[in-house]
Amino acid sequence: MPDPRLSPLTTPCLLVDEARMKRNIDRLAQHTAALGVSLRPHLKTTKSVEAARYVLANGNGPATVSTLAEAEVFAGAGITDILYGVGISPDKLDRVLALHHAGCRLTVLLDCAAQAEAVVAASKASGIAIPAMIEIDSDGHRSGLTADDPALIEVGRVLHEGGAELCGVLCHAGESYGAIGRDAQAEFAEQERLAVVNAATALRNADLPCPVVSVGSTPTAHAAKDLTGVTEVRAGVHVFFDLVMAGIDVCDVDDIALSVLTTVIGHQPSRGWTICDAGWMAMSRDRGTADQRVDQGYGVVCDEMGQVIPGLIVIKANQEHGVIAPRPDFEGEVPDFPVGTRLRILPNHACATAAQHQQYHVIPETAGAALSTWSRFGGW
Amino acid sequence: MPDPRLSPLTTPCLLVDEARMKRNIDRLAQHTAALGVSLRPHLKTTKSVEAARYVLANGNGPATVSTLAEAEVFAGAGITDILYGVGISPDKLDRVLALHHAGCRLTVLLDCAAQAEAVVAASKASGIAIPAMIEIDSDGHRSGLTADDPALIEVGRVLHEGGAELCGVLCHAGESYGAIGRDAQAEFAEQERLAVVNAATALRNADLPCPVVSVGSTPTAHAAKDLTGVTEVRAGVHVFFDLVMAGIDVCDVDDIALSVLTTVIGHQPSRGWTICDAGWMAMSRDRGTADQRVDQGYGVVCDEMGQVIPGLIVIKANQEHGVIAPRPDFEGEVPDFPVGTRLRILPNHACATAAQHQQYHVIPETAGAALSTWSRFGGW
Repeated sequence: MPDPRLSPLTTPCLLVDEARMKRNIDRLAQHTAALGVSLRPHLKTTKSVEAARYVLANGNGPATVSTLAEAEVFAGAGITDILYGVGISPDKLDRVLALHHAGCRLTVLLDCAAQAEAVVAASKASGIAIPAMIEIDSDGHRSGLTADDPALIEVGRVLHEGGAELCGVLCHAGESYGAIGRDAQAEFAEQERLAVVNAATALRNADLPCPVVSVGSTPTAHAAKDLTGVTEVRAGVHVFFDLVMAGIDVCDVDDIALSVLTTVIGHQPSRGWTICDAGWMAMSRDRGTADQRVDQGYGVVCDEMGQVIPGLIVIKANQEHGVIAPRPDFEGEVPDFPVGTRLRILPNHACATAAQHQQYHVIPETAGAALSTWSRFGGW
Repeated sequence: MPDPRLSPLTTPCLLVDEARMKRNIDRLAQHTAALGVSLRPHLKTTKSVEAARYVLANGNGPATVSTLAEAEVFAGAGITDILYGVGISPDKLDRVLALHHAGCRLTVLLDCAAQAEAVVAASKASGIAIPAMIEIDSDGHRSGLTADDPALIEVGRVLHEGGAELCGVLCHAGESYGAIGRDAQAEFAEQERLAVVNAATALRNADLPCPVVSVGSTPTAHAAKDLTGVTEVRAGVHVFFDLVMAGIDVCDVDDIALSVLTTVIGHQPSRGWTICDAGWMAMSRDRGTADQRVDQGYGVVCDEMGQVIPGLIVIKANQEHGVIAPRPDFEGEVPDFPVGTRLRILPNHACATAAQHQQYHVIPETAGAALSTWSRFGGW
């Protein structure tokens, strides 16, 4: 049964299921509240002011961003407590200071003395004590210092004694994306907590301030059982969830709030292919499920109402073509989809798929109400 | 030696080397002219009006696009002979007609009777004989009919007798991306030529018109030795080239005209990692070289001037972090890159990487001249 509200939409386009999104946001908010920590949601997934109003505490609360462009847009929308969660480079400090001058408390992230010295120099030159967090590594994923690295105290001292504002320590348990199930993810959460609490202790033992102790990745944020010593949690993709998160049991496929609406544009009957207009430009090239237990190709195929069609995935994608076919091991019946049929595709990775689009079409929680459109932005 | 013109740029951002781009465009133009066929360049790679002026004949000539959004933007810029090279769906015909009303001759593509009937119905209703090409399959890559499929004549008849304009046949040898070297690609080119020439013959033998016989993929366009019976060639990625094209010897790495400028934001000395601000948001998730002879990770690392640094690639990418490290088999020295160092990354796939950005910063052919900025667009 087609939804008449979707008919006027040009495909491919992004759909958001408002009810699922609200449920996802509430789930993490309740979990972190129960653990006694505050939430600093990551806005890199949605990159939308309208979406930020849902995900931030009171619509305006503390936020994390992945680019200065995000910081600038969200600051312009009145969000004034923002953490820029990517290591700062000296050339970006002018824009950091401009945000402070505009009334946004933007906190930067770093893990080496060279960065700390640049932040200190900019703080001195501007008279603004730039707030800075030190990145801690709990699992070898990417950046950060370990709690026992002498550089931790060195960096802390450079910041604190040089006139920047040493705010605390931050960890992102990025390797938890490879852990399947809540128990395994809880172990990563505990490792993340210990890394950052130990780092905070090391700083405090060196008479350095460390008011903020921040952890976060979507799997660990949901799996954590105890966050003693932690003050805040960050997560981003939980707003929409995606097939990667479903593949490691952080959510169910039915929790995924983001999909791409597509139209069937052809067939290759001899190969059992249905061709649709959601190629990699609409889905992104992200193949995050490729190494998971179930490879979902470029996405799971649903009917126009969002109901999963058993066995069907986008097995291959060109720029503007998606090839829909059964998973290799599927033996059931595959329905016919005449040219013009509308389908929805659930994405591997919500952050990547959303980034291919300029707006969201939001299916409202209230049955039958009109769709709304949220803009999203990109760039740096 | 840093280039002072690049210093003001915010990273990550896209750079275009104008001299290389012009050389790439000239190379294919000369080759197709020698073969006696016209060129209908694909604008899906650049998606930029400024870039289109370089690549189209006389800056305004026949073009191919992959979305109606492209057709609309380029038509608005005065480009009035456009082929929409993705199978048409009935819901998109209103926009096709609107483009005709606005003075753009937009040709659609199809490969089944249901599409042809929709095009015929729209032609009748509007009084505009919509130009249509029939897609031919030469290698099982994606869409299209084979020359001996009875549906070819059926589709041709529906179009021709129903009042649409049957323009001809079109083939895209997409599987040629897997062929290494000019000889292997020339075989795909000949297979592509034969498929489409045979289809044209079949239509003509059935008393159907077939003035246009169109082939094209970047590898076959460059490798073709004889295009007898073909009237036009399409190609897109040749404007910039990329590591995938270099990996199959269509070009050299030194021909790649597109790169991402990035800044070093940290290190993990124990792992030999340099962290930069070109993650997958800047590079795209495209890993087209993963299955080639040399896996180039998320891209080949160059210095700020564009000189390849031996052995270094982006081995891993998160949303806004790229991890630079030597290729697994590299045994040479790796230079140190202090925080703040600017580097360039050559992309796997120019179409995908460019799509992550909103503008190009163009390094002019004339030494020392100021950079220019070309805007690019996305959407559907």
